Amino acid sequence: MRSLTKKAFPQPSIRRLPGYLRLLRQFREEGWDRISCTRIASELDLDSTQVRKDLSLTGIAGKPRIGYDLESLIAAIESFLTWDKTTDAFLVGAGSLGRALIGYENFGNFGLRIIAAFDVSDNRIGVPIHGRPVYHLREMPRLASELGVTLGILTVPAGAAEEAAAVMVESGLLGIWNFAPAKLDLPASVAVENVELVSSFAVLALDLAKRHEQRAGAAERNPRTAGVQ
Amino acid sequence: MRSLTKKAFPQPSIRRLPGYLRLLRQFREEGWDRISCTRIASELDLDSTQVRKDLSLTGIAGKPRIGYDLESLIAAIESFLTWDKTTDAFLVGAGSLGRALIGYENFGNFGLRIIAAFDVSDNRIGVPIHGRPVYHLREMPRLASELGVTLGILTVPAGAAEEAAAVMVESGLLGIWNFAPAKLDLPASVAVENVELVSSFAVLALDLAKRHEQRAGAAERNPRTAGVQ
Repeated sequence: MRSLTKKAFPQPSIRRLPGYLRLLRQFREEGWDRISCTRIASELDLDSTQVRKDLSLTGIAGKPRIGYDLESLIAAIESFLTWDKTTDAFLVGAGSLGRALIGYENFGNFGLRIIAAFDVSDNRIGVPIHGRPVYHLREMPRLASELGVTLGILTVPAGAAEEAAAVMVESGLLGIWNFAPAKLDLPASVAVENVELVSSFAVLALDLAKRHEQRAGAAERNPRTAGVQ
Repeated sequence: MRSLTKKAFPQPSIRRLPGYLRLLRQFREEGWDRISCTRIASELDLDSTQVRKDLSLTGIAGKPRIGYDLESLIAAIESFLTWDKTTDAFLVGAGSLGRALIGYENFGNFGLRIIAAFDVSDNRIGVPIHGRPVYHLREMPRLASELGVTLGILTVPAGAAEEAAAVMVESGLLGIWNFAPAKLDLPASVAVENVELVSSFAVLALDLAKRHEQRAGAAERNPRTAGVQ
């Protein structure tokens, strides 16, 4: 663990680790016990040098002509990402996105467990979502301390984000997963990761415009077949 | 539009454009009609040279000592991202995440309109979500062609992703916004943008572990105050 404070890991590599984990678990389910770097690279359409480098972050190395021991590699990635332990989280904002994330079963595969939700609307408070209690936001400082929760997921509208984040910080949370379309002004002691859905849509919208243009170009060149594809 | 096929735009810049747009709209609401690059940079905690470069993508330039005309800059970003027109989309997978995205009002600010959902579960088909009809997936090719829809949003579980994506491609969709935790094998003619929630959580989980470690370190050095914060 000590090494975590010593060096920063390359973010793109970290972002690829869950994809490796998903693939490796799938291979394990299919009954394999070893896998080569080349195979991983080809399955995920990556360069095998890159794969070897990414996986070496976890402290494990493959053997020439044998590859990786599947079980050890899975355990190493899970341990590196702290997903060998369950992380309890609070969710703030019990609207549609919040409800969806609470019901999103895939998180369980990655050690994330949302144990309670918070809101400020009277009609939401006290009505459990997928079995999880919904409290008033003002209860968070007390409950965070009682339950030892240090991770929060923020799913409120933009206008409510700043105030909700302030309560999360006041509650002693050390990490915020921010789904609100707003930039949070947080103390440096709090880790934040923004999920920018609209930024992702911007990239897609531009790419989509390009495809439309290409299709229109093809139609100009060959009007008879362009509608077909 | 022709320029879109000629050059690729830097993705990080494109990803920042929605943040600029959000800020600029906020300034407009507050009654401003001009804004300087320095002000934008300071509000968003970016370098002003970077801001100028990002905004120049849209073909608009600020004037020295005057700044940008707010209305023109907003229009230029909207037009550049094609958000001055509405893009209709189909959503595949009417589970909790799909329902949440259909109900997510923020998309309307960015020209995205989900007009119908598709699923293969009998108990979901025919039951509207937020007023949008839910059809069987097999209806998609016909409806895509009738309604001229070219964008799809994929929110099915990993195991169903490949099959659903194949129907989307068969329906002539040109862009897929993929929320399924799976790598899609798509023809090069289809634009895809993956929202990798779990990758985002991986980055946060590592950062959170570092904060825990720092807090534990602080507790070792000063046991009396470490629990407070």
